[in-house]
Amino acid sequence: MPDLWQDAMDHAVTLARKAGEIVRDALQNDLKIMCKSSSVDLVTKTDQNVEQLIITSVKEKFPGHSFIGEESVAAGEPCVLTENPTWIVDPVDGTTNFVHGYPFVAISIGFAVNKMLEFGVVYSCIEDKMYTAQKGKGAFCNGQPLQVSNQKEINQSIIATEFGSNRDPDAVDKIFSNMRKILCLPVHGIRGVGSAAINMCLVASGCVEAYYEIGIHCWDVAAAAVIVSEAGGVLMDVEGGPMDLMSRRVLAANNNIIAERIIKEIEAFPAVRDDEPVDPIK
Amino acid sequence: MPDLWQDAMDHAVTLARKAGEIVRDALQNDLKIMCKSSSVDLVTKTDQNVEQLIITSVKEKFPGHSFIGEESVAAGEPCVLTENPTWIVDPVDGTTNFVHGYPFVAISIGFAVNKMLEFGVVYSCIEDKMYTAQKGKGAFCNGQPLQVSNQKEINQSIIATEFGSNRDPDAVDKIFSNMRKILCLPVHGIRGVGSAAINMCLVASGCVEAYYEIGIHCWDVAAAAVIVSEAGGVLMDVEGGPMDLMSRRVLAANNNIIAERIIKEIEAFPAVRDDEPVDPIK
Repeated sequence: MPDLWQDAMDHAVTLARKAGEIVRDALQNDLKIMCKSSSVDLVTKTDQNVEQLIITSVKEKFPGHSFIGEESVAAGEPCVLTENPTWIVDPVDGTTNFVHGYPFVAISIGFAVNKMLEFGVVYSCIEDKMYTAQKGKGAFCNGQPLQVSNQKEINQSIIATEFGSNRDPDAVDKIFSNMRKILCLPVHGIRGVGSAAINMCLVASGCVEAYYEIGIHCWDVAAAAVIVSEAGGVLMDVEGGPMDLMSRRVLAANNNIIAERIIKEIEAFPAVRDDEPVDPIK
Repeated sequence: MPDLWQDAMDHAVTLARKAGEIVRDALQNDLKIMCKSSSVDLVTKTDQNVEQLIITSVKEKFPGHSFIGEESVAAGEPCVLTENPTWIVDPVDGTTNFVHGYPFVAISIGFAVNKMLEFGVVYSCIEDKMYTAQKGKGAFCNGQPLQVSNQKEINQSIIATEFGSNRDPDAVDKIFSNMRKILCLPVHGIRGVGSAAINMCLVASGCVEAYYEIGIHCWDVAAAAVIVSEAGGVLMDVEGGPMDLMSRRVLAANNNIIAERIIKEIEAFPAVRDDEPVDPIK
């Protein structure tokens, strides 16, 4: 059943492109910025408008499908993945970048059926790079096939990660000590563009060997997980074992050797699962 | 005397574009990578070829001019700024990025007369962004005028910096403690593209409020310093006072308020000046 979800995938690409136009237009105007969990966790009217556009269009075209979206969850909708075909959407991944005009902002649309990811679309709209992947069919950027790096030596690698928006001192301690351990393996460098989805697409593209982060959400990584996997990469939990989409933890790597080496170094810190009952303060 | 160095500036733009083509072509082929000061301080045949191209062309067209280039200095040439018109060149800024195909690689050409910077050209060749500035004439990216951010609140800012290639534990301690202090002011985020020149051009473009780093060289920042300054920004030493091009330290900011706030947080660590007698091991 290779073409079962082709319709949905094509629609996701169309929606991502339309959303990207809205984001690019908004960059020309004054942005209305609001805060969510803290003064550094930002949201704009554009995040909300783009999510609304995507929900409305999906509900019209695929009325039986479910939807998990960053702004809907922020507004109180449940964040539970069922067996039903489900669209998992971040309307603006890299909102802080967006607010500053820093050129890495993505629309991320993942799609799962029976709790398995089927396709992913990540549109890096300022760069105009459309990353797409469908299970079993390979990963692409603007139609060109993607392939992860074949590097097996950690000390010849670049690792991507982020400081994130958590400023809790214990979490910050771990974020910094993890980065330091990775840096001093040594690696060639640590990078991070400020968007989880684009960091993962850079793993898929072979520019960085791996990306890890604790604190991300399912909508940040669902689409890009398919892209990494279809580019030949691996997805794991930061402490090993399979990636759990709702766990707020991700490790994407070019291969198991690099992944395992990173797992040996990093220490996790607590993050409330995406599918826990919503705590309005967190 | 507004057009005194226009010829030299035009030639710098031509050379940067030609060099950028060589860099982009090289990305399609297998790179020959060598190490300099450590296993994470990289150089490629392309760095050397591009610098040779620029030197040869400058010597032919401006036989009386002096030259300071990253690879010439690595090969034992002196790194001393005199009153003579001097080209200060990094043939490939972001060599680690270049080696990995990470999309921020710049050709940086600065020009000083009487020890004062007169113009700067930074060509971010994978993005195809040509940043230019001439003293008193404004800063531009692909011909569009640049303007720094008007943000005065540090906690609404993005700060750029880098982990760098120094893995000395004392230096790494300071690099991390500085970043942590900045992050927890709090700021909106910390970013870094892996090229000093491009980080500074992002300050000039208004995407980030400031960039600081200890350990950079004069050829990393000479050109971009003119671009920041002509975009309305300020250049300072990381402990305050005027920037010293040979000190291995730089702070570029959108304004003095943001610059002073950063200076209050960061602690310097030793770095051998660019104009010290060359130590072949460092």
